[in-house]
Amino acid sequence: MNNCIISDTVTIKDNVILGDNVIIEENCYIDYGVIIRDNVHIKKGSFIGARCILGEYLMDFYADRINKVHTLVIGENALIRSETIVYGDTIIGNNFQTGHRVTIRERSHIGNNVRIGTLSDVQEDCCIGNYVSLHSNVIVGEKSIIKDYVWIFPHVVLTNDPTPPSEILIGITIEAYAAVAAGSIILPGVIIGEESLVGAGSVVNKNVEKETVVVGNPAKKLCLTTDIRNQLTGEQVYPWKYTFSRGMPWDKIGYEEWLKSENLR
Amino acid sequence: MNNCIISDTVTIKDNVILGDNVIIEENCYIDYGVIIRDNVHIKKGSFIGARCILGEYLMDFYADRINKVHTLVIGENALIRSETIVYGDTIIGNNFQTGHRVTIRERSHIGNNVRIGTLSDVQEDCCIGNYVSLHSNVIVGEKSIIKDYVWIFPHVVLTNDPTPPSEILIGITIEAYAAVAAGSIILPGVIIGEESLVGAGSVVNKNVEKETVVVGNPAKKLCLTTDIRNQLTGEQVYPWKYTFSRGMPWDKIGYEEWLKSENLR
Amino acid sequence: MNNCIISDTVTIKDNVILGDNVIIEENCYIDYGVIIRDNVHIKKGSFIGARCILGEYLMDFYADRINKVHTLVIGENALIRSETIVYGDTIIGNNFQTGHRVTIRERSHIGNNVRIGTLSDVQEDCCIGNYVSLHSNVIVGEKSIIKDYVWIFPHVVLTNDPTPPSEILIGITIEAYAAVAAGSIILPGVIIGEESLVGAGSVVNKNVEKETVVVGNPAKKLCLTTDIRNQLTGEQVYPWKYTFSRGMPWDKIGYEEWLKSENLR
Repeated sequence: MNNCIISDTVTIKDNVILGDNVIIEENCYIDYGVIIRDNVHIKKGSFIGARCILGEYLMDFYADRINKVHTLVIGENALIRSETIVYGDTIIGNNFQTGHRVTIRERSHIGNNVRIGTLSDVQEDCCIGNYVSLHSNVIVGEKSIIKDYVWIFPHVVLTNDPTPPSEILIGITIEAYAAVAAGSIILPGVIIGEESLVGAGSVVNKNVEKETVVVGNPAKKLCLTTDIRNQLTGEQVYPWKYTFSRGMPWDKIGYEEWLKSENLR
Repeated sequence: MNNCIISDTVTIKDNVILGDNVIIEENCYIDYGVIIRDNVHIKKGSFIGARCILGEYLMDFYADRINKVHTLVIGENALIRSETIVYGDTIIGNNFQTGHRVTIRERSHIGNNVRIGTLSDVQEDCCIGNYVSLHSNVIVGEKSIIKDYVWIFPHVVLTNDPTPPSEILIGITIEAYAAVAAGSIILPGVIIGEESLVGAGSVVNKNVEKETVVVGNPAKKLCLTTDIRNQLTGEQVYPWKYTFSRGMPWDKIGYEEWLKSENLR
Repeated sequence: MNNCIISDTVTIKDNVILGDNVIIEENCYIDYGVIIRDNVHIKKGSFIGARCILGEYLMDFYADRINKVHTLVIGENALIRSETIVYGDTIIGNNFQTGHRVTIRERSHIGNNVRIGTLSDVQEDCCIGNYVSLHSNVIVGEKSIIKDYVWIFPHVVLTNDPTPPSEILIGITIEAYAAVAAGSIILPGVIIGEESLVGAGSVVNKNVEKETVVVGNPAKKLCLTTDIRNQLTGEQVYPWKYTFSRGMPWDKIGYEEWLKSENLR
């Protein structure tokens, strides 16, 4: 607990462990039994749930049991639910939310307004954009790139090794506004195109074109996203940015209005 | 720890945290480091494993960090293994069993004699009957309905959003005595018929008839459950209620005898 | 904490709970909040991460809440990452590594140099050889046999019940040097042949021949492993023992040289 800067307005519950060089900004709440290791910076207004571990040791700790400098920065107004583990050498933007028991490994960059569901496992060297939503139990393999406004549903696996086991890892890329439904597996190096939709239980072994729906094992093109209708109302559903806005920056004003205001900035 | 009623016969190990308005009935055992938040009622004879969190905060806590009343009731003789998290606003019947690190969200109703395996994740507004068994790492999506005597095996996902992402969630229904084998994905709104069997790795995108076996991606009818033979003995296996009874109410007396006695009640 | 033998060179952090008859050999490190129940033996140089539970209770504990003797032995130089749970009645070899929140049940035998990834769940009565690597979130069903140098990738499920639910469990067998890619499901009793490769997302319902690649649902033979080329270099990749050596005993000397030296012993 050397060189820590903890705002007077921070609530710290029982059995919290603090390492060295920890900064906790105003109005944070650190629940029971949280372990904050060295060189962790938590920005203002964040809630850290019971028994989270922040700044978890990287492999180099285990060699000599001396913790090296691997800074973790967590942005403002985070809501990190109980028992989540986040490694060092990672930078996370504002308004980050997790479910329970999420694991986030080292050297990942995570944008603003990202949500990661219970049990999801983000491995090292990943890059996740803004307003990305991962549901429960998603595995984001090393070197994955996930662009802004992407949705990934439960039990999806993003792989990276074309000839396992090997040393040549080729991460996948998911372009903006794409959605990958539950239980799908994306094979190494695959690019999922902008605004596309991968149906549940698909095994995707080649690139998916923009605005395209693929399904099956192996995944094949089913139709365009614009062909999909709401089963009850018959209305066009996609691009979803026009029909869904909860948690998105265009909430209450609509996508087009928001886009105009963005373009004026 | 205001207004708590804890029986003298309760064992409470070290580092347990108790909230307000907690009731713990006789002969319960609360293992190391359990967190029991406010308004939790644990009925007699229950075992709460190390570091469970009971009455976990709902979303409304995070707004002002004041815990609202969301009562959790856990029935008699529960065996909740270590590191399980159960939210408030949930009612669980008697003889409940979990593996480790189960997550059960708010506003779910869970019957008697239910078992939920390690890492399984029951999301909000679910309804689970009596004598239901979920194995490891099952995801029960919001608004799922699971009737009595249903079996769900590892890595099954019950989904709910027909056009992800959207606001229109349509939960699935699994009728009594049905079994869903490992790694299957059930698409939104699907009804799995009574006594039916979903083969491992299936992606089920339409309703499954009563006593029917479906397999594949997408799942197709393979045969009737009554056509399946035990590979070693050649005997008919299904309906399984006649060939399997461990943990079921007809254990030792057989299904027919039990049914007669039930009908006489 | 009766009858414990703890070397003077052991580091024990805050909030560690020690049972009876615990042996911890020299240079071990027991991080914050670890629970070590009775009859656990940790060999020298091992690191036990924060809040692990070692020697977790078996079912017989819950009947009368008296812990029976179920010894757990963890070999030298283990690296068990935080929140892992290992049951009693289990023997684990040297240089064991886990990710976070692994669960290992009773009566399993695990060889030397085994790595088991985050969230993986090894159920009871399993037999795992030497130099086996399981990635994240693998479910190893009861009675599975995994031979030496096997690789299993994320979200794979090894099943065991041919007619669920039933009492007749038939474990799977994975022969030496085989690799099972992400999200595959192996059906009960299946034997995966030596040096074979199961492609991602496969549902394997019959035996896989030696050196064969299978893919699909249901899995079918695609080619021989020797037919596979590295997409970038065009070079032959399999048998992988000639092209990959990190963490393997032939690291730096090559498989042939190592085999010669082994045969001379």
